[in-house]
Amino acid sequence: MKAAVIGGGVIGGGWAARFLLNGWDVAVFDPDPEAARKLDEVLANARSALPMLYERALPVEGRLTLVESVAEAVAGADYIQESVPERLELKHRVYGEITAVSDAPIGSSTSGFKPSELRDGMADGARLVVSHPFNPVYLLPLVEVVPGDGDPAVTQQVTDILTSIGMRPLVVRAEIDAHIADRLLEAVWREALWLINDDVATTEEIDEAIRLGFGLRWAQMGLFETYRIAGGEGGMTHFVNQFGPALKWPWTKLMDVPDLTKELAAKIGDQSDAQSGALSIRELERLRDRNLVAILRALKGEGSGAGQVLSAHEAALVVPLADVVPLETVARVVPSDWTDYNGHMNESRYGQVFSDAADAVMVHVGADADYVEAGLSYFTVETTIKYLAETHAGEAFRVATRVLLGEGKKLKLSHEMIRVSDGAVLATCAQFLVHVSLKTRQSCAPEDHVRAAVEALAAAHA
Amino acid sequence: MKAAVIGGGVIGGGWAARFLLNGWDVAVFDPDPEAARKLDEVLANARSALPMLYERALPVEGRLTLVESVAEAVAGADYIQESVPERLELKHRVYGEITAVSDAPIGSSTSGFKPSELRDGMADGARLVVSHPFNPVYLLPLVEVVPGDGDPAVTQQVTDILTSIGMRPLVVRAEIDAHIADRLLEAVWREALWLINDDVATTEEIDEAIRLGFGLRWAQMGLFETYRIAGGEGGMTHFVNQFGPALKWPWTKLMDVPDLTKELAAKIGDQSDAQSGALSIRELERLRDRNLVAILRALKGEGSGAGQVLSAHEAALVVPLADVVPLETVARVVPSDWTDYNGHMNESRYGQVFSDAADAVMVHVGADADYVEAGLSYFTVETTIKYLAETHAGEAFRVATRVLLGEGKKLKLSHEMIRVSDGAVLATCAQFLVHVSLKTRQSCAPEDHVRAAVEALAAAHA
Repeated sequence: MKAAVIGGGVIGGGWAARFLLNGWDVAVFDPDPEAARKLDEVLANARSALPMLYERALPVEGRLTLVESVAEAVAGADYIQESVPERLELKHRVYGEITAVSDAPIGSSTSGFKPSELRDGMADGARLVVSHPFNPVYLLPLVEVVPGDGDPAVTQQVTDILTSIGMRPLVVRAEIDAHIADRLLEAVWREALWLINDDVATTEEIDEAIRLGFGLRWAQMGLFETYRIAGGEGGMTHFVNQFGPALKWPWTKLMDVPDLTKELAAKIGDQSDAQSGALSIRELERLRDRNLVAILRALKGEGSGAGQVLSAHEAALVVPLADVVPLETVARVVPSDWTDYNGHMNESRYGQVFSDAADAVMVHVGADADYVEAGLSYFTVETTIKYLAETHAGEAFRVATRVLLGEGKKLKLSHEMIRVSDGAVLATCAQFLVHVSLKTRQSCAPEDHVRAAVEALAAAHA
Repeated sequence: MKAAVIGGGVIGGGWAARFLLNGWDVAVFDPDPEAARKLDEVLANARSALPMLYERALPVEGRLTLVESVAEAVAGADYIQESVPERLELKHRVYGEITAVSDAPIGSSTSGFKPSELRDGMADGARLVVSHPFNPVYLLPLVEVVPGDGDPAVTQQVTDILTSIGMRPLVVRAEIDAHIADRLLEAVWREALWLINDDVATTEEIDEAIRLGFGLRWAQMGLFETYRIAGGEGGMTHFVNQFGPALKWPWTKLMDVPDLTKELAAKIGDQSDAQSGALSIRELERLRDRNLVAILRALKGEGSGAGQVLSAHEAALVVPLADVVPLETVARVVPSDWTDYNGHMNESRYGQVFSDAADAVMVHVGADADYVEAGLSYFTVETTIKYLAETHAGEAFRVATRVLLGEGKKLKLSHEMIRVSDGAVLATCAQFLVHVSLKTRQSCAPEDHVRAAVEALAAAHA
């Protein structure tokens, strides 16, 4: 599959990275002479962050080409993403160049324009939708898809594509300036401008008020589910009525908009320098990405919010184990939250790697989620790990597993954890597992199909 | 230390829980006949969530008493937190009852009132401040402290107390209706009401737009730091000027406020039921708390945002190891993100427990953070773990550690992981470590003071 990305700035670059790392070929057109450098920087960030979200390896990266024209970019593309600056006449010109040579669906990254405005004067406007992502595009799952009066088949095609690269398309049913999220952001932005203008708070104080309080809530539930809880047994309608009076109180200045004078702009700039100036933009980006990876992984662990999007995508990355000797039970990269103060992978994570390797064997022999659901599983009784070489965040590795013994309730596995780049054996593990009933919590014989599969493996690996 | 909590609803109960779990005695007064039940429910949530934030045990829980009057609650209290409903005359009456019998500092949980309004008519208003927390109070670190023209010594005293129970007091320098965070929330709330009123989006769509996009950003950086990054090399002032024009565009409806009709309230209620009605409020609370624990722990791992607040609090929980045989190297509870699909602690986390136990020994013998910083450390070479019993989220355990061998570069440890409730040995671990230079990544002899300490331990444990 090939994606064309028109406009290779922070947003376009983020799109390119997400497609590439999900195995698509990508052609980027951007007339900026600095485009190649900027694209490289976004890609470097994406490569060190996105693969860490998953406990599985992503597809083999696609091929990136930086081309000289819109026509060249969209030639043969299955999907076209437009992320040029927010000037309507520029977007119209780009759509003209696209439609002259391609009939692939087009998504626009516009923050503010409605599809009807974008389509104005287009020959074939029905195959264009707004597909508005959030920075960093390669990590945040949300993409607002606004079809307006476009072709429903195109909307379906676009949402399928976006889902396949790990995003969550939110179809915005009614077209409106700035869609949904940016309207909420604009409201906060305007109120925050007042707070700074009136010297109530600095940029840093406002950021602290967000990220230590409601920002944490909003990373997992939104506004309404949070308030539903606050309303308690009274229910949401009760809550709304209870907080209704505040709408008449001066709790925001939003009936009005502050004048964005040079002085106010400079004040914000100065406060932001004082708050964050110790780190360069690149350093801030990497800090942000590490935090987002950690938060997203935490939510994946809980199976909630953005974590559900990740889990669904990860499930699509699972391939059944090939029947080779030894089995390749794990293939992935080391996420940053697995490293410790020594700068290398914490010893406990080796345990996790080999636990995951054992899980892969379980699934392979038929002791899968349904089997566990039905009340049977294997428990690990003893593990011996030898740590042979250091392992660092971002390194790709695989695990080669042999079944040394598979007899009745007993299962012995031997694993080698191997770095992909140089084939170095990073650690070995001997694991002794016993088959148990999850009801009695006692050992018991596996079901016949599992026992047969285990015995066959043990014989093949002998 | 004793805290008086006046008003025992969701917010007051959250305050009571945070103080109790940090070792304070707490007296609660609330005239609601249901107060005891409601308090119990908040406490149960808090007990199963707050201790999981730390890799250390919290202090022994304080004593909770539910009393019959304000006077009884505040008698002997070192700090008083008022969380009664948002009616000014009620708050004034409560302050009158407090000041008649106590001269402890008072914090008010008010969302909207300014300190000058709260102090109106008070004999000794300078010892009252706004200390406005965020629900759930036992998990979110933010508390807005608004001194207004109060006594700076009281503000310092209150912020010290709040810091000691793991919170991050944000001193709001200028008093204003709804302080900082609730002004931002009110802006979003008003815009969201419009979106629902005009059928642009449902409560669920708005929540998805928040939690899958900018909510994730705001859990770790706020509005301005996020936009600073978006502005790139141009800097924040450039960003502000670039986005200035949008202030004139119809990107929000906030020049106006929607009429909160019965119909609008019911529409929100119905949409919220459709979105979240499958879970009870209690179930939603537990889901929220699990998510928040996971996110907060993720940020602690990265040392960023709210994670810094946790780390600072955790550092204050560290007590030097007592010189007993065996050493008690770990004391904590099992966090929920350590359990797997079998419902018990994942085998890899045993590795983490024993890795932490080894770290405690390191610090004890002088191979501490400074030692590592100077380029020396111990690496684990081999670990054998025996899993003897299942362990579940929320269970408290400790680790008893013996030094079997301490000779030159070699160090052998033997650990027992013991459940606090019944003394059951959950797992054992034999660990072999080697002293290394972090520069050469080769083994080398420890410094004299470390070697002497290791040898002394080995002799004592022989």
